[in-house]
Amino acid sequence: MVNRNVATLVAYDCWALLEGADIARIAWQAPDGIALVPVNYAVDGGSLWFRTDPGTSLARQCDGTDLVVEVDRIEPDGRGAWSVVVRGTAELVDPLAVPDTLMDMRVWPVSPHSKFVRVRPDAVTGRRLWSAPIEGGTDARP
Amino acid sequence: MVNRNVATLVAYDCWALLEGADIARIAWQAPDGIALVPVNYAVDGGSLWFRTDPGTSLARQCDGTDLVVEVDRIEPDGRGAWSVVVRGTAELVDPLAVPDTLMDMRVWPVSPHSKFVRVRPDAVTGRRLWSAPIEGGTDARP
Repeated sequence: MVNRNVATLVAYDCWALLEGADIARIAWQAPDGIALVPVNYAVDGGSLWFRTDPGTSLARQCDGTDLVVEVDRIEPDGRGAWSVVVRGTAELVDPLAVPDTLMDMRVWPVSPHSKFVRVRPDAVTGRRLWSAPIEGGTDARP
Repeated sequence: MVNRNVATLVAYDCWALLEGADIARIAWQAPDGIALVPVNYAVDGGSLWFRTDPGTSLARQCDGTDLVVEVDRIEPDGRGAWSVVVRGTAELVDPLAVPDTLMDMRVWPVSPHSKFVRVRPDAVTGRRLWSAPIEGGTDARP
C-alpha cells in the first residue's frame, strides 16, 4: 500500500533540513537500556557536533558508540512534519581540533570543561509527512 | 561534583509536564538497531497513548515491546530546558477499548485504520536544566 502522505527525502534535502535546525534527540545503547536525550547540535564538515558536560552519561558512554540522531519539525498548525535520522559513530574530539565556528555552541548545563562530540554519519534518512483528511472529514489537502 | 544547574524532577512534576505537552520522541530496539521517531501523544489513565499507521515499523514492532518516550521543552531564549523520560511497555489496544477522549488524537499520516498504542510506564524520570554563566561571562542566572 503506497501512502501518498509520506515522502522519502533525498540526502541533499536531509542535510539542508539538518543545517536549518539546532535541536536533536539522540539515542544510544546504554548499559541499562536505550538512553534518549535532547541536545543542541551543529553541522560542520559533513558531521554533526554537539557538546556535553563531562559528568553526563552521554560524555562517559558516547566515545566510539553507535548513535542515532533524530531532528524534526512539526508545523505548529499540525498540517505537516518532517523527520531526519542520522546513524553514525560518536567520538570525543580534543578541543584543539574543534573548528572555531563551533566554539560558541550551546550546551546545557554550561561548563567550561564541556566536551565536544562529533558524529560521523553512516546513514542519513528522512521523511516528510502531511496530514490528510480523516474519513468523512472536509480537509482537502492531498 | 554537584551541578547546581541541573534539578531532578519528582514524578508529580514529570506528569504535570507530560500532560502539558503533546509531542514525544520514542525509541525502541528494532531489528536493525535503535528506531527513533517523533509522535503526538496524550496522557490518559496514567498511561501515554499515541496512534500510528498500520504500515509503519512502529505499528508492526511495538506490541509488547519496551519503549522509551522522551518529552522536552527547550525555552526559545535558550535559558532553560526540561526533559522527561518514560520507560514502559507498549501494547496495541483494540479501538473499542480506547477512551473516547483519545479518539481525535492526531497522527501522521492520518489513516482511518490507525492503531492505538498504550505505554504503561515502568519508570518516569525528569530533569530541569538552566544555562549558567560561562567562565568569564556576565550572565547572572544561578
